[in-house]
Amino acid sequence: MKVTVLAGGGGGARLVAGLANAGCDLTVVVNTGDDEVMRGLHISPDVDTVLYYLAGLIDWQRGWGLQKESLAANDRYRELVVASGVEVDMQDWFTLGDRDLATHMFRTQLLTAASLTEVTAALCGALGVSVPVLPMSDEPQRTVLETTSGDIVDFQTYFVRHQHRDEIGAVRYLGSARPGPRVLEALRDADVVLIGPSNPMLSIGPILALDGVRDAISRCVAVSPIVGGKAIKGPADRLMASLGHEVSCVGVAKVYEGLVDTFVIDAVDADRASEISMRTIVCDTMMPGPDEATRVAKEIIDGI
Amino acid sequence: MKVTVLAGGGGGARLVAGLANAGCDLTVVVNTGDDEVMRGLHISPDVDTVLYYLAGLIDWQRGWGLQKESLAANDRYRELVVASGVEVDMQDWFTLGDRDLATHMFRTQLLTAASLTEVTAALCGALGVSVPVLPMSDEPQRTVLETTSGDIVDFQTYFVRHQHRDEIGAVRYLGSARPGPRVLEALRDADVVLIGPSNPMLSIGPILALDGVRDAISRCVAVSPIVGGKAIKGPADRLMASLGHEVSCVGVAKVYEGLVDTFVIDAVDADRASEISMRTIVCDTMMPGPDEATRVAKEIIDGI
Repeated sequence: MKVTVLAGGGGGARLVAGLANAGCDLTVVVNTGDDEVMRGLHISPDVDTVLYYLAGLIDWQRGWGLQKESLAANDRYRELVVASGVEVDMQDWFTLGDRDLATHMFRTQLLTAASLTEVTAALCGALGVSVPVLPMSDEPQRTVLETTSGDIVDFQTYFVRHQHRDEIGAVRYLGSARPGPRVLEALRDADVVLIGPSNPMLSIGPILALDGVRDAISRCVAVSPIVGGKAIKGPADRLMASLGHEVSCVGVAKVYEGLVDTFVIDAVDADRASEISMRTIVCDTMMPGPDEATRVAKEIIDGI
Repeated sequence: MKVTVLAGGGGGARLVAGLANAGCDLTVVVNTGDDEVMRGLHISPDVDTVLYYLAGLIDWQRGWGLQKESLAANDRYRELVVASGVEVDMQDWFTLGDRDLATHMFRTQLLTAASLTEVTAALCGALGVSVPVLPMSDEPQRTVLETTSGDIVDFQTYFVRHQHRDEIGAVRYLGSARPGPRVLEALRDADVVLIGPSNPMLSIGPILALDGVRDAISRCVAVSPIVGGKAIKGPADRLMASLGHEVSCVGVAKVYEGLVDTFVIDAVDADRASEISMRTIVCDTMMPGPDEATRVAKEIIDGI
């Protein structure tokens, strides 16, 4: 069975690692709506997280960044920013580890001669990742959040700097990027498109907003990122509430209505299955480590 | 006595450190013809070297980079480049230490909101450098070298990648950059303009090529970077030979004829003084460490 996964950098990336480990015939389409140029470096946070999970380099406990990372450049950067007294936002609230910096430098340098899709393929090669990882687009499409007081904040400011404390009234995908060169093909060729337990608005929404993506998906299975009425990690629960959705697996299912035919919910939410209009798969979806991710992946694949 | 120094990143930067340490009323105008965007980062090699010398952070023995530097990001970058097998030049022959990276990230980030002159002032602040350090221009002017076989190579490729092995037929300064906002003023206001023992073609030539710079200089003292017929460091000797100049302090003096009125030569070249058309100062110009640099600075200032 050919599976194409739509993923962000959180639970979706963990499921991708599990699917790869389970020997699944896999292609991954990754959100790039959070991409940002910081300190001159093109950072693709979700792509990198997926790559690091697939390469076995991630810090599973923290959920981002590399294991055994050092912070010499980052610490020095912060020292310089503080000592200089400059008043512009130097984005020193964003942490970039030394070895992680190498990834961003590699991407930024190679982008002078190649597309983001090609650069990501080169990074796959460098990291020994054989699963095709496709950025959703080679063109910029920026996810921004509009607060209830009308401010527009970019994703990293909302997520990292403000620690997702802003009350959000709307999520917008700025730009009219086309899907990456192999994205629609990967969706059409798949036996099933699997939407990971990622944030529906911030990780999956940007991919689905690209021209032609929804039409290229036929059979589609989604995994709820809301378990027992809470986000497993991150701000999906508060964001859904802000935007007027029910904060539950039922609320997520409603967001995906018309696209998804099978919905995976956690065992703790088994009693909500009858409220969901699609076919459901019930299993333990927690993935604290690689073994659990592999088990979850197998259960989902077996259940489809 | 107000002194404005024209400097590159080698002997000129050492003399600047010596002059500062000697308590001289100093402004420095630094070559930016070797500036380069590498891995997304705006690198100003000569500005950084001058700053690091002034801040007491330089590795004097090596002559570039910071003391006690780590290479986690750089080593990882090289690993990625090799493992990826990409065939474009990823400039992984250029070494960037972790703490040095912070300087380049600071510059690159702040350049989104400020000029190179302002960024350099902020770096001075961050590093506790009270001497005004002025990049020669806020606009790009690129030094390139034309080999005798007609190839055009950029400075870093010539200097670092090819280890200055190319036979050079001409040096060109591409662009029509204007001097930085305070450069002409610093030259006009100085009691003396001091040209450090820097490469005349690669470090000083780019500054002198800027519109209005030569006219703003009245009293001018230069220090020979050629001692005993050899460059103290770097390719100045071979480059001068390639370009048809005599490789000696006399040859350098000829390059500066019409601009410089007092020429500083090393004691080992004392017997060549009579061949030089300007007034000469003879002293030991070797600056292997900060104490010698201070002594040389004092001797030159006293001799002017």
